Amino acid sequence: KSHRIASIPGDGIGPEVVSATIQVVEKLAKTLGTFSIDFEHIPWGTEYYKQTGRYVSEDCLDTLRKYDAVLFGAVGSPDVPDHISLWGLLLALRGPLQLYANVRPVRTFPGTKCPLNTATNGIDWMLVRENSEGEYAGQGGRSHVGQQWEAATEVAVFTRVGIERIMRFAFETARSRPRKLLTVVTKSNSMRNGMVLWDEVAAIVAEDFPDVTWDKMLVDAMTVRMVAKPESVDTIVGTNLHMDILSDLAAALAGSIGVAPSSNLDPTRKNPSLFEPVHGSAFDITGKGVANPVATFWSAAEMLVWIGEKDAAAQLMGCVERVCAAGILTPDLGGTSDTQGVVDAVCLEVEKL
Amino acid sequence: KSHRIASIPGDGIGPEVVSATIQVVEKLAKTLGTFSIDFEHIPWGTEYYKQTGRYVSEDCLDTLRKYDAVLFGAVGSPDVPDHISLWGLLLALRGPLQLYANVRPVRTFPGTKCPLNTATNGIDWMLVRENSEGEYAGQGGRSHVGQQWEAATEVAVFTRVGIERIMRFAFETARSRPRKLLTVVTKSNSMRNGMVLWDEVAAIVAEDFPDVTWDKMLVDAMTVRMVAKPESVDTIVGTNLHMDILSDLAAALAGSIGVAPSSNLDPTRKNPSLFEPVHGSAFDITGKGVANPVATFWSAAEMLVWIGEKDAAAQLMGCVERVCAAGILTPDLGGTSDTQGVVDAVCLEVEKL
Ligand SMILES: CC(C)[C@H](C(=O)O)[C@@H](O)C(=O)O
Ligand SMILES: CC(C)[C@H](C(=O)O)[C@@H](O)C(=O)O
Repeated sequence: KSHRIASIPGDGIGPEVVSATIQVVEKLAKTLGTFSIDFEHIPWGTEYYKQTGRYVSEDCLDTLRKYDAVLFGAVGSPDVPDHISLWGLLLALRGPLQLYANVRPVRTFPGTKCPLNTATNGIDWMLVRENSEGEYAGQGGRSHVGQQWEAATEVAVFTRVGIERIMRFAFETARSRPRKLLTVVTKSNSMRNGMVLWDEVAAIVAEDFPDVTWDKMLVDAMTVRMVAKPESVDTIVGTNLHMDILSDLAAALAGSIGVAPSSNLDPTRKNPSLFEPVHGSAFDITGKGVANPVATFWSAAEMLVWIGEKDAAAQLMGCVERVCAAGILTPDLGGTSDTQGVVDAVCLEVEKL
Repeated sequence: KSHRIASIPGDGIGPEVVSATIQVVEKLAKTLGTFSIDFEHIPWGTEYYKQTGRYVSEDCLDTLRKYDAVLFGAVGSPDVPDHISLWGLLLALRGPLQLYANVRPVRTFPGTKCPLNTATNGIDWMLVRENSEGEYAGQGGRSHVGQQWEAATEVAVFTRVGIERIMRFAFETARSRPRKLLTVVTKSNSMRNGMVLWDEVAAIVAEDFPDVTWDKMLVDAMTVRMVAKPESVDTIVGTNLHMDILSDLAAALAGSIGVAPSSNLDPTRKNPSLFEPVHGSAFDITGKGVANPVATFWSAAEMLVWIGEKDAAAQLMGCVERVCAAGILTPDLGGTSDTQGVVDAVCLEVEKL
């Protein structure tokens, strides 16, 4: 089989980790010989914005629909306000492409150390984030700008369709894991509309999954549980903002945000799904050649699973884990390797397959 | 001096921890002889609601304005939806009384253990939560209820006045602490209105505090910093929801939510401020006599500071810390004492003053 992937390296360390990943995945395809893969470069990002006034091309959705998947680096630049760059590129794709399921596996990875002494076996969680509405619906505004009586709103929009589809996806995800455990996170004690609807829809969808054990938690109390009883947690589902927060927390508790991957999925497969590291553009280390490529390797492995190359994905992850376990790590994980050193080590492992 | 305190024990373990605290504070006043204090019982809560159809009396704000402060237990009951009980009582006071500064000191307390390997000296943070608007403005609604196309909103409302006053309070709080360090938490990359206004107001207010070192962080990244670099954190300020989440996380990271106190302050002193443990009604242990009273003791100490009894507050905290350090702890902290055991031990310490 042959796959066409759109690569959007974007800003900051995005180009470094995406180039690292393309090297590794191309080596994998060549070595295994079971599939071929073609990465096509798409130059969207802050440079493109400075030249054209837009972060993406006008026909961006149609452009991406020609591909089987999208590999994304990062967006964000110190000289553009974050809300311009993020809504210009990443958030201009997640919602409009209906990539409603943001899946974030979190575990204590070889080479990382769980900082919690409550988690004797490290952490292994699956976080499912609603990715198309809620607090990221993009609504709200400012009135009386600059006056003492200025008022601004941020409007979270929740739909029954939006909640039901992510809930179903989350229950299916929980069912696919050995423990079949799901926690539905809301904040329905202080938020009386969309959050109460979340609770209602969760109860309805749960009826179709009698084999899944589920419970509900308030987002604030969930952070306490993640810290104090990490072993009681398995799969978590929540709103766009709640899971944005909990997924960063989870990655930090597991050992490092530097290895955390994410999949932005359209489970209906009408649109190509988008795979990206969680870490962001990290301008403090951009251009130094020391960015940790592991989160992007792992994101690419998730992409391979999604496009039907499950075996190849498993082989790739095996290679990456062996390299990390051998201590070939970038400085953020306490190692002394640079990005290319990690790439070369993974390619060597791939050659041995 | 003589002080009149409204006591609202409320639901669940609220009555147990409030009664424990009244015993201890009355003993303190009697022993020190430097002030007198009078607690008057106000029966608001779920029982009151079942009898009257309301969680509070109709003239609740005027009722409370007759007191110097309010000591609050907890609200919430398994047989009433949380959004009814919370908006019926606690949230009916915080906003309407303009208790805009919710102050939550968090530290690794004697008898608790910080679960983080990254914090060798335990944790000592000061969290300042905007407490009158934002995500808790109470706006939003549901349309097409029950239909497949149902849509619901939660509307966060931010005002320049509301942001400026909490920001000023936070900078002053940071200034009063040895490290003079403040982190302003927002989410202004995905939220483009109220959150951007937060950033703008922070920059303006900061100009009046050149002696305070401050930085900005996104709420998701802040969780990573709290876990990975706890020693880099001192005072934090953020929105109602963001700090609701971060304060629970902070308490868990410090060692236990069972000791975490909070002050709901009206810094203009037009209204009485309200002091409450962070833990909530905890129906699973209600009536068993094992609730941890330390969070309420600490909240009462904060109340004593607020009403001008700084010395008495310090003496009280000294007694409580000695008791905890001696291992006289409730089961949630791994101890074998019941609530009254802790009360008796603290009273014994008070007698020695
Ligand atoms: C960059 C930012 C807009 C983004 C988000 O808030 O979703 C990031 O934090 C993430 O988690 O993917
Ligand atoms: C009980 C609940 C409404 C409350 C809140 O969300 O503010 C609690 O979690 C808190 O932190 O005081």
